[in-house]
Amino acid sequence: MGLELYLDLMSQPCRAVYIFAKKNGIPFQLRTIELLKGQQYTDSFAQVNPLRKVPALKDGDFVLAESVAILLYLSRKYKAPDHWYPQDLQTRARVDEYLAWQHTALRSCCTRAMWQKMMFPVFLGQPVPPEMLASTLAELDGCLQVLEDKFLRNQAFLTGSHISVADLVAITELMHDNGLSVLAAKSLRADPNWLPGVRE
Amino acid sequence: MGLELYLDLMSQPCRAVYIFAKKNGIPFQLRTIELLKGQQYTDSFAQVNPLRKVPALKDGDFVLAESVAILLYLSRKYKAPDHWYPQDLQTRARVDEYLAWQHTALRSCCTRAMWQKMMFPVFLGQPVPPEMLASTLAELDGCLQVLEDKFLRNQAFLTGSHISVADLVAITELMHDNGLSVLAAKSLRADPNWLPGVRE
Repeated sequence: MGLELYLDLMSQPCRAVYIFAKKNGIPFQLRTIELLKGQQYTDSFAQVNPLRKVPALKDGDFVLAESVAILLYLSRKYKAPDHWYPQDLQTRARVDEYLAWQHTALRSCCTRAMWQKMMFPVFLGQPVPPEMLASTLAELDGCLQVLEDKFLRNQAFLTGSHISVADLVAITELMHDNGLSVLAAKSLRADPNWLPGVRE
Repeated sequence: MGLELYLDLMSQPCRAVYIFAKKNGIPFQLRTIELLKGQQYTDSFAQVNPLRKVPALKDGDFVLAESVAILLYLSRKYKAPDHWYPQDLQTRARVDEYLAWQHTALRSCCTRAMWQKMMFPVFLGQPVPPEMLASTLAELDGCLQVLEDKFLRNQAFLTGSHISVADLVAITELMHDNGLSVLAAKSLRADPNWLPGVRE
């Protein structure tokens, strides 16, 4: 059995892994795990990933969780072009810095904003309290400011003049359903070229 | 000016960076930033790290934030022994997996538990509501279970038979003041050798 990727393309980190694999011509079997149907809680999926999260990678007997670890594994195993995870010491450190920062910053804020804006109203039948949503969106705004001021600055991409896995991880947080979400629209303030640049 | 590390050894990620640098004989100037005195909010520190967080690394003109990125930068630049961040594809992926997982799991839980148990009572003059603390400690217990069942398993160290940066990042979350904290004591259930093993 070759490479298997357990994904739900509704999930941002899954989309980053999917795009990376497709873009780099990496052959894989797509195993869809539908989060909204709770398929991550089945016993059969727990055998693959006891953390019960997607994305998960299975490569023979080797099973790996966490999108960042999966992206780096794929880039190394399939020798993806250098720009995705550059050998250059400082540029690579910039990618690592973004990948570490986003877990508790942009990813966390985007996830909460998406749930509070879109998911909770559907599941609960009423919007979340406005002050809760306002607080989350203010925090998201702070994260987007850091994304622009510290990471993107005047560069074409987050860590320099070439696209890296950092851009992929960021862009999938900010884009939904092939369009720019409300969240993404906010990030266009500083550099209107970054999002279209990554899309290409 | 050589390598400068901006640290507060009260901070768990700072301790991981400090121990790694010392253990590997990496020469550096220690720049202490006292978090409890708010020194991370000074203008001079904002020049170093606009995120206003420690640890931060300054190597000539190159400035880097995020402990995980700093650990990997140091391991590459100073060619630390392989076991810290193994070349082997799958073992390295295990280290990456742990480093990605911990941000929103063990690190997040330990930070909240520490604040709720130790810091808030000091600052607020009264304990946090018992149900809040109980909920945080239950979540922490879940994280420690994952640490044991998924990562440590029956191994000497988190990602195999040799110590890696993953162990350093984990152990500094669980240990305070040169002793085993209440938090760490919980993690001794499965493998009483892991904590002492890492300490050595």
